[in-house]
Amino acid sequence: MKPFLELFRQAEVPKRPPLWMMRQAGRYLPEYREIRATAKSFLDFCYTPELAIEATLQPIRRFGFDAAIIFSDILVIPDALGQGVRFVEGEGPRLDALEGVEAVRALPAEIDRTKLEPVYEALRGTRAALPAETTLIGFCGAPWTLATYMIAGRGTPDQAPARSFAYAEPEAFALLIEKLVLACVEHLVAQIGAGAEVVQIFDSWAGPLPEGEFRAWCEKPVGDIIRGVKARHPEVPVIAFPRAISGGFGRFAAEAKPDAIGLDTAARLREARAAISVDVVTQGNLDPLVLVAGGAALDRAIDEILDATQGARHIFNLGHGILPSTSIAHVERLVEKVRG
Amino acid sequence: MKPFLELFRQAEVPKRPPLWMMRQAGRYLPEYREIRATAKSFLDFCYTPELAIEATLQPIRRFGFDAAIIFSDILVIPDALGQGVRFVEGEGPRLDALEGVEAVRALPAEIDRTKLEPVYEALRGTRAALPAETTLIGFCGAPWTLATYMIAGRGTPDQAPARSFAYAEPEAFALLIEKLVLACVEHLVAQIGAGAEVVQIFDSWAGPLPEGEFRAWCEKPVGDIIRGVKARHPEVPVIAFPRAISGGFGRFAAEAKPDAIGLDTAARLREARAAISVDVVTQGNLDPLVLVAGGAALDRAIDEILDATQGARHIFNLGHGILPSTSIAHVERLVEKVRG
Repeated sequence: MKPFLELFRQAEVPKRPPLWMMRQAGRYLPEYREIRATAKSFLDFCYTPELAIEATLQPIRRFGFDAAIIFSDILVIPDALGQGVRFVEGEGPRLDALEGVEAVRALPAEIDRTKLEPVYEALRGTRAALPAETTLIGFCGAPWTLATYMIAGRGTPDQAPARSFAYAEPEAFALLIEKLVLACVEHLVAQIGAGAEVVQIFDSWAGPLPEGEFRAWCEKPVGDIIRGVKARHPEVPVIAFPRAISGGFGRFAAEAKPDAIGLDTAARLREARAAISVDVVTQGNLDPLVLVAGGAALDRAIDEILDATQGARHIFNLGHGILPSTSIAHVERLVEKVRG
Repeated sequence: MKPFLELFRQAEVPKRPPLWMMRQAGRYLPEYREIRATAKSFLDFCYTPELAIEATLQPIRRFGFDAAIIFSDILVIPDALGQGVRFVEGEGPRLDALEGVEAVRALPAEIDRTKLEPVYEALRGTRAALPAETTLIGFCGAPWTLATYMIAGRGTPDQAPARSFAYAEPEAFALLIEKLVLACVEHLVAQIGAGAEVVQIFDSWAGPLPEGEFRAWCEKPVGDIIRGVKARHPEVPVIAFPRAISGGFGRFAAEAKPDAIGLDTAARLREARAAISVDVVTQGNLDPLVLVAGGAALDRAIDEILDATQGARHIFNLGHGILPSTSIAHVERLVEKVRG
């Protein structure tokens, strides 16, 4: 069995943790920068299957990671809901902001599948080209995180516009989250149909929410997505990544019932591991900045995670995406140390 | 005894929690905006005792909070260490960045007390003008938070420059933190000498640090400051505010030994309260955005905090500073509900 899937399916914990890195297909790789330059926009790049396939395969060729994550973006869902997503160089994403309750009601009930067809084609092509031992991961953004962009029309510090909207218009906000739950289930199920063997739900902006809002807008909808996916594909592991939350991992695991939980850079690994049932896999939480730094600091940080997860079900990964300034030699060192 | 100090000194928990708000002297008040317009820069405003006194008193006059926090800024310490702090309108603070190990070594061993004399004068003047029942709070930025500005020369997303510096140059970074511990102790002791009855240490950027780095650069130095202050003024309560940390409150309380811990907006209040010894006071964690929203959402959020802290030693406060867009009617509602 593939080393990555073993962790979810075997009674025994494998001797070495499977390894991949969030944003492993990306700008720190010269071969990525080369093909990225051939597409006129970031979204065009995501929607061109041959480019997305090549980007997905590049880090696997170079480092032999245990899993490949399909090259795509979380904002393809708002794009497939008609929000006109575009990426402004050096500034980040821009969307047609949802202005008010009526705009939320007017959102289509279903994603435009033809728009997302290139993503599924990229998954099929990647699966065909990947080594047999490599696991293919599909993904989506979680409803709360997507809503923060959809309400504000862009990324925002502390996600204040979406938080304010949710306080002022809780019913309309709940409707938006419900629509996004359905869109996420549909997109993940389609990705599984196209070859994804594991899926990850990125709740990148879960961190600033107060506890009650976290339960309502993150824990509950992510749990709904997981139940929706499991109803169709009970065998496919789901990784939930509620980034930068202030504890509450035990409750989140019990309520949302993911197969694995991603732990961000600041998460207390031993504490979280102790709070989560032993059957649930953890993933993370190496600091991307220590991978940039390298040297003794990197070695020590890797050892700390290996120590803290000794005998536990853990996927070695970063706590956030790899940074463009990361040197390839440091990634090689990481692979060498984790593989032992 | 003053209601605020009672919480720290009496065996019995008072029936209603004392109340103040972080950044309570600020732009949401028309009377603040009026006097702010008379100073040519933010730092001039902080260093002009009559203006700082008036700003400190304004929210007390209007709302009768149990505590007044001296109007000042955390960056007066780097300013008093010669880093040329200035505030750029609409952009935030700028400092002469510490470039490399030599710049850290060259930092003076002591703060320039004459530079900070106006802060102490403002404390003396405020104390003389405050109602007898109102407690006066002094404060400083924690070493880690100050270092993030001193290394980068400005505020930075995720504080990457300081984190990278600490990985690459751990000894020089430790030296910087040590110098800041001494500066903080000196500044807090001087504030107590000038009339502060409680002091708060703001570690606003503690959140993104991995656990090991949090212990080294936040928990340990804040504990050192508290020990330093207590050696001179064992009777003065110290509030530590490690903002946006991912749990670990129990350990932080036991190691750093503050009299009170500030809980940010996302902190899990019941969980944190349960992890912290009953003798330790908590403070926070109302979402400043729910105070902007008002209405049913605000009432519910206030009730939740009152419920969760029933019978516990808790100071009612926000989880972060009050926002300029907050309506005064909402603050009045808050005062009315908390006072019962």
